[in-house]
Amino acid sequence: MTTAFNPELDLILEREVDVSPAELWQAWTTPEHLKQWFCPQPWKTVECEIELKPGGRFYTVMQSPEGQQFPNTGCYLEIIPEQKLSWTNALQPGFRPADTPPQSPGHECAELLMTASITLQATAKGTLYTAHVLHPNAASKQRHEAMGFEAGWSAVLDQLLAAIKQSR
Amino acid sequence: MTTAFNPELDLILEREVDVSPAELWQAWTTPEHLKQWFCPQPWKTVECEIELKPGGRFYTVMQSPEGQQFPNTGCYLEIIPEQKLSWTNALQPGFRPADTPPQSPGHECAELLMTASITLQATAKGTLYTAHVLHPNAASKQRHEAMGFEAGWSAVLDQLLAAIKQSR
Repeated sequence: MTTAFNPELDLILEREVDVSPAELWQAWTTPEHLKQWFCPQPWKTVECEIELKPGGRFYTVMQSPEGQQFPNTGCYLEIIPEQKLSWTNALQPGFRPADTPPQSPGHECAELLMTASITLQATAKGTLYTAHVLHPNAASKQRHEAMGFEAGWSAVLDQLLAAIKQSR
Repeated sequence: MTTAFNPELDLILEREVDVSPAELWQAWTTPEHLKQWFCPQPWKTVECEIELKPGGRFYTVMQSPEGQQFPNTGCYLEIIPEQKLSWTNALQPGFRPADTPPQSPGHECAELLMTASITLQATAKGTLYTAHVLHPNAASKQRHEAMGFEAGWSAVLDQLLAAIKQSR
């Protein structure tokens, strides 16, 4: 499912990178790889579980520099190997609607609903990497933007590229 | 994705029926067919749009006997022809998280989030028909039950069977 970019509701990060779609796919779909780069440092991803099928579980635990842990559970939606990976936190594994509390306990991200997709297109240099994040409304999009989407996802992509190159 | 039945959170209607999986599939995936049976009478389904792919739009407008209209937009999740159809109203088309208002305008169902799946298994008599509805929490499940899930979905299945037999 290709979704046209809606500047009112969506955020996008697009960059041509010098690694292959296969390397990026492996980094996104293997827990041991993903844990190396998924959080902007000095935060860490201390747990990761990936059940790579539509309806499958995508579970991560992020840890702050102070040691506080923030679990996140999402559900995979679309999986096209080496081309497209989509997931959402609006559904839990098995496609069950997420039980979002009216007040967010703990972390400010806790109830920011989103669907994310990573699209990979082979190029002469390597890969055109696109991260596309859909929000339910303009306020959510603006909140995610204010939280530092651009800098955060960009830093994470730098970490991802460094991890791939180090593992070659 | 097969989800085990969780009696705390889920509702299920299972019945062996004397029509084929192919007939049931057509009734569920063709707007002109679906409009004939999708609402318990005397309510009517006055509009229906079906975009039969993961992430595709499932749109219906139900009309009360007094003429008030209630539009519903959902998103298809899993489509296995003649075997399984799943959709949710927790996502909008293109997998965007639904923008659920804190207060429900109009209809009491308006913000009851659910994921539904219809599973069809061929039997000697016809089809084992299973409707499985997942809710985010026990309160939602109980509310849906109190609204008459069992009687409503059962009446709709009777209408569905009658429509199939009439169109033969």
